[in-house]
Amino acid sequence: ADMPAKAKTCVGCHGVDGNSVVPNFPKLAGQHAQYLEKALKDFRDGFRKDATMQAFAKNLSDKEIKELADYYASQKAK
Amino acid sequence: ADMPAKAKTCVGCHGVDGNSVVPNFPKLAGQHAQYLEKALKDFRDGFRKDATMQAFAKNLSDKEIKELADYYASQKAK
Repeated sequence: ADMPAKAKTCVGCHGVDGNSVVPNFPKLAGQHAQYLEKALKDFRDGFRKDATMQAFAKNLSDKEIKELADYYASQKAK
Repeated sequence: ADMPAKAKTCVGCHGVDGNSVVPNFPKLAGQHAQYLEKALKDFRDGFRKDATMQAFAKNLSDKEIKELADYYASQKAK
């Protein structure tokens, strides 16, 4: 999957291809799309707490969340 | 790192080497140890909600959490 526009926001912490190099930010590359989708929705809807992630996820639509989840799931885990 | 005794509990959902094949259970293999440690502690201490994970993490010591985090972080992501 090619990189959705909204993924630009994620690059800073999670890395361009989702292989974050900062140990407290999880690697997303190759993670299950369904898990990533659930995590983003939980952050958006307040079921999962993290100030940064809740702020970023707040305005994401279901479609954008799916695209982001599919994008990172399709990246190669390094 | 070799497999800690407590990891037997995780295998059912996350897979022997942490490359879970069930899409709603996250892959742990190759994830940052620090992130895994934080996740387990948050589940143990109730900062992060998930009935299953909270039940499993409830009795883990800091040492056991560190061993589990290091074990899965050292596995090869597939």
